[in-house]
Order: sequence, then C-alpha cells, then structure tokens
Amino acid sequence: MASGRARRAALPPRLAEEAAKIASLDIRAMASARARQARLTKPPGSLGLLEDVSIRLAGIFGEERPRIRRKTVIVAAGDHGVVAQGVTAYPQEITGQMVLNFLSGGAAVSVMAKHAGVRLVVVDAGIANDLPEHPWLRRVAIGKGTGDIARGPAMTRRQGEACLLAGIELAKRAVAEGADALGTGDMGIGNTTPSSAIASVMMGKAPTLTTGKGTGRSPQELRRKAKVVAKAIAVNRPDRRDALDVLAKVGGFEIGVLAGVVLGAAIAKRPVVLDGFISGAAALIACGVAPEAKGYCIASHRSAERGHRIVLRHLGLRPLLDLDMRLGEGTGAVLAMGIVEAAAACLREMATFAEAGVSNKAAP
Amino acid sequence: MASGRARRAALPPRLAEEAAKIASLDIRAMASARARQARLTKPPGSLGLLEDVSIRLAGIFGEERPRIRRKTVIVAAGDHGVVAQGVTAYPQEITGQMVLNFLSGGAAVSVMAKHAGVRLVVVDAGIANDLPEHPWLRRVAIGKGTGDIARGPAMTRRQGEACLLAGIELAKRAVAEGADALGTGDMGIGNTTPSSAIASVMMGKAPTLTTGKGTGRSPQELRRKAKVVAKAIAVNRPDRRDALDVLAKVGGFEIGVLAGVVLGAAIAKRPVVLDGFISGAAALIACGVAPEAKGYCIASHRSAERGHRIVLRHLGLRPLLDLDMRLGEGTGAVLAMGIVEAAAACLREMATFAEAGVSNKAAP
Repeated sequence: MASGRARRAALPPRLAEEAAKIASLDIRAMASARARQARLTKPPGSLGLLEDVSIRLAGIFGEERPRIRRKTVIVAAGDHGVVAQGVTAYPQEITGQMVLNFLSGGAAVSVMAKHAGVRLVVVDAGIANDLPEHPWLRRVAIGKGTGDIARGPAMTRRQGEACLLAGIELAKRAVAEGADALGTGDMGIGNTTPSSAIASVMMGKAPTLTTGKGTGRSPQELRRKAKVVAKAIAVNRPDRRDALDVLAKVGGFEIGVLAGVVLGAAIAKRPVVLDGFISGAAALIACGVAPEAKGYCIASHRSAERGHRIVLRHLGLRPLLDLDMRLGEGTGAVLAMGIVEAAAACLREMATFAEAGVSNKAAP
Repeated sequence: MASGRARRAALPPRLAEEAAKIASLDIRAMASARARQARLTKPPGSLGLLEDVSIRLAGIFGEERPRIRRKTVIVAAGDHGVVAQGVTAYPQEITGQMVLNFLSGGAAVSVMAKHAGVRLVVVDAGIANDLPEHPWLRRVAIGKGTGDIARGPAMTRRQGEACLLAGIELAKRAVAEGADALGTGDMGIGNTTPSSAIASVMMGKAPTLTTGKGTGRSPQELRRKAKVVAKAIAVNRPDRRDALDVLAKVGGFEIGVLAGVVLGAAIAKRPVVLDGFISGAAALIACGVAPEAKGYCIASHRSAERGHRIVLRHLGLRPLLDLDMRLGEGTGAVLAMGIVEAAAACLREMATFAEAGVSNKAAP
C-alpha cells in the first residue's frame, strides 16, 4: 500500500487518525516556564532535574504553570503463550491471581497507590484464566493469552490495533475523569520475553543485550530466554519500521494496551509516567507509531532488569528513581508521581523574588 | 579530664546522658521483617532498596511492621560570620528573608511539603538579622550569627552543646506531637563553608575534596572557598575525636541544631531523613557524639554539591534520590519521605502469598 517513498508502513485508518492528533510540545509555554524558574526564590538550577521536568510539563500542557493534582496509573494485565518455552519459573495462573490482589489492595502497587494518593485502574487486557466479576476491573480482553511467539505471531494485526485503540480510550477516559497525569503498570507472567523481543527489534540490538533475568534466577534460564527471544524474531521477522507489526508478531496484549495509554496521554496533552522495562517496550511501540509521543513520556525509575537502561537511553529519558526495583505493576510509576507533582507544584506555586521580598542581587 | 585510655573527649554531662539513651537497632525485629518480606506477594527482592529501608525501619522502631504516617521536617536556619571572607555571592539578609518565605509558603520546601503532606517546623537557630514575630517560628537562637571561622571559633563549646540539646528537644517534641518520621533541612547563607570544614575534619579529607561551589558559580570563588576552609581548620585546630569541639570551632548554629535533631530522632527511635550536604555535616557531628545514631539515618538524595558523595560513603548511606538538586531547605528530605513511607507501608500492609491465595511455587 505504501508509496515507494514512504519508509513507514501505513497505519490502519482509525489508528492513523488518533496518531495524527498528537502535537509536538508547546515551545512557547516551555520558554515561559524556563523564564519563570529563573525568577523563583532559589539559586538558578538548584532544583536540578525537577526544573527540567517542570519545563517539559509546561510544554505538555501548553501552559506556563501546569497543575498536577489527580494522578492515575493504568495497570494492564495479560498472558503470554511463550511461557510454554520455559522462560519463567512461575505458573501462568499467577497473572490472574495478582490482578485480584491488585483489586483487593494487597499488592505492592495497591499499597503504594493508597499512600501516594494515586488512583489505580486495573485492566484485563487478555488474561488466560477466567476471573470472577469485579466492579473495579476494566475488561478490554483482546484474547485469552497471546500465541507462543517462538512458534508464530503473538496476535493478529487487527488485535494489535485493538490493543492500541483500547489503551487510547482508557487514557482519554482517565483524563476525562480528572487525571492530570497518567502512569503505566503491567502484570503478565512471562512478559519480559516479548518486551525483550520488542526492544531488540525496535532498537536493532541483539537479544543478549535486551534480555534480563525477569523473575527467574539462574544463568541457564537467562541463556534459554535470550535464545527464545532470538527465535521469536527469526520466526516472525517483524518489521521495525512498522511498530504495529512488531507488537502483533512479538508483543503482548497488555504491552499493546500500555502503548495505547502512552498515545492516549499524548493525544490528551497529559504526561505519562512510565514504569519499568515492560512499560519501556510499550513506549517503544507507541513512539514507533507516533514519534511525537516521546515528549509526553517521563521515566519513573531505572529497573534492575537488564535492557531497561538501553531502552531509556534510546528514548532519551533520564529516570527519576534508581532503587533496584524490578517488580513492575506500576510501582515505579506510582513512586515517581510524587516527584512529578512536586516539580509542577514548585513551578506553579513558589514565590518569585519580587513577590517574597527576597534579594535577588549577588553581593558586590 | 579523659583517662589515658579514652580516645574520645568527655561530653558535657547533660549531652552524655542524652547520647547514652541511643540504643542500637533491634536485630530481632529486623530478622522478623526480613522473613516477612519473603512472604509478601512479589518476587523476592523485587522492591530493591525499599526492602532494605523497610527492614531498617523495623530495627529503628523495634517492630516487625512499623507504621509511618505522620512526617515532620525540621528546618533550622542560622548565619555565618565567615561570609566576611567572600565565600558566597549572596548577601546575609537572605537567610532571614528565606525563613519568612518558608513560613508564608512561597519557598520550594513549603510547596513540596504541602503536596507531600509533610509538616514543616521552622527554627531560628541563630540568624543575624531580627525577624518579625511569627506564630510558627521556633526560636532557639543560640546567637546572632557565628564568629568568622577563618579568624577564630564559630561559637563557644557551651553554645555548641546548647545547639545539640535544642535539636534533641525539637526532635523529641515533634515525635511527642505525633511524627513517625523526622527529616532535616537547613537555611544559612554561607553554610556550605562550615559544612566543608566539618566534613574535612571528621573524615580526615583535604578541603579541596569537600568544598563545592555552593550557591556560587565561578572557579575562582571555589578556590577561594577551599582556602578559607583550610584556614578555618588551621586557625582553630579542631579535634576530630571530639565532635562537639569540631562543631564549636568550625560549625554553625543550624548545623548544631540539626545534629541534635539526628540525636533526638535516635533517642526517640524514629528514622531521620537527611537532606543534602549541610545535613550530612550535621550527621557527621551527631555520629561523632553517638556512633549508634548512624543506624537511624536515611539519606534522602545525593546533592549536586561536591563533597556530599564522600560524606554519604563515609556514613555508609545510599541515597534514595539523585536528581542534581542542591537547594537545601529540606527539599530532598521532603521528596524522599514519600519513598520511606512507601517502604514501610509495603512491609506492613501487603498481603502474604497465603493471605492473597497467590501461588508461591515455581513451575516444575
């Protein structure tokens, strides 16, 4: 379909329409915010990375003094056929069990979200097992677990598009319900394997560089996993210039939904705080679909998972936290939300030298 | 006074009595907390540094599942005679002006504290200028600015003791008023100079290694400052085995009060979240007075100020944040409080595998 000149594969029409809504950051608002930072009662630059974040927030919102008060983290869960390859020591039923644990408040992300005043939206993006009805569980289930990527595609291209559109809608709805900032989180036994495959393809890096131990522990498991990632790429031959192809062939349902959340946040002009490695893979897909989405991404933390470091470097993002965490669930995103809020609040609410009657003159 | 065998100089009786109240961490509670971490619904170790912090909190509180809800940061302000040596580009009256800005809510620390639900206690530890009455300002003023340490001692030994005792009382009172965790913050034009002097003496490091640019900007200023630090040490000859001597000769009123806050937190069995470089110098004094106090200290962030890195290494503390901040005021402590609270909350409130009905068995 694509003309001879176009290097990117054409997106399906609805997705193309959504992607076209993403604007680049408002550089006038950013210049204004930068100038305001220099008038605030502190030595210039002394808030470090918080000042950089605040200026980007101004560009995202298109306002000199954006306000971040209500925060929502969207946690998407899905299962992965590739567990048949022995890439993880944990049984698949844990995905659904942990989703119930998110909902009943016993998981790390639930506890952290409660303390940080962050709203959680828990999404079944494609869990293999049947879950009981629950009023707080959003069901966008694209399928009951993906196909085994070591043998064929994870899902169809149409399912890949459905993931992205579902994520876009979830993000838009969260913003419509009042969220000033969004975050991503994931749950899915086996999902570091498709994430490594996505990272390898989208960045053109060898699987040995993007594959980490996930929840596994032994060096043997790690070597086996890197081989499975390489096989998934060899079998499926995803086209890195076509992010939707990559998602469909070697991705996962929750990864696709989170990529959609990134796009939806950008469409709605809201920051999206990325959790760890799986969210990083989702961001690579989102930025493949719409490169302008990158400006809306804030990296919460550097995960202990191997490969996350190079994903962040590839995206040009400096993480706010580096705490050797590797849990996923959105725990990093929830923790970093307070810092993002603080960055916006300082820009918006601090007194200027003139307002506070504080001397802004260096001594002679 | 000291016997031939004693290497530490004797502390004044009241201070010695307080220091003797500091217990070492409760290792049974720590073992219990470590065992509990392994039963919580997450892969072992996946919360990284948060697990380490939570286990230390158990040791501090003497409970397997400590609770952190109410948080207080004590911000002490003082002036420094050494500004006469041209160590900073800012005029001394900014110290008092910024204290008023803290109280009226316009400073970075005020804005952050409001958003993070942290109570601020603002303390005049020895500001040179007269401040108007203010209902929220605690006055423990030991003097009206210290002496110029390049020419003589900052204060008398008795004043040094008064700083420490005042800080101990402030910490005890904050805990009596409900604080589960304390933090430190500072304000004082010129106070990186005495902090560098303290760091040099207490760690036995050359002033060029402990002196950073503070709020100044030029390399000339930095060289001049390192020379002033060296001169202060040469003129006063503080005894590193006697932390009170070091505080009195080359310290500052707010630094002494913050050292007292560290001691007071340890006495009250509460964690104390240290802000940046000045708070680090205060912690060096506190740990010189009572080495057991170290276990109660949590480093909030790694400041961009040179010298802070080696102070943290000397104290054996890994900072939670690394955001190139160098503002002081307690901004790092306030930001990190949310992470400390999250660490405690996960330990206390997460479900165990058994409680949540989540499988804890690896697949065969």
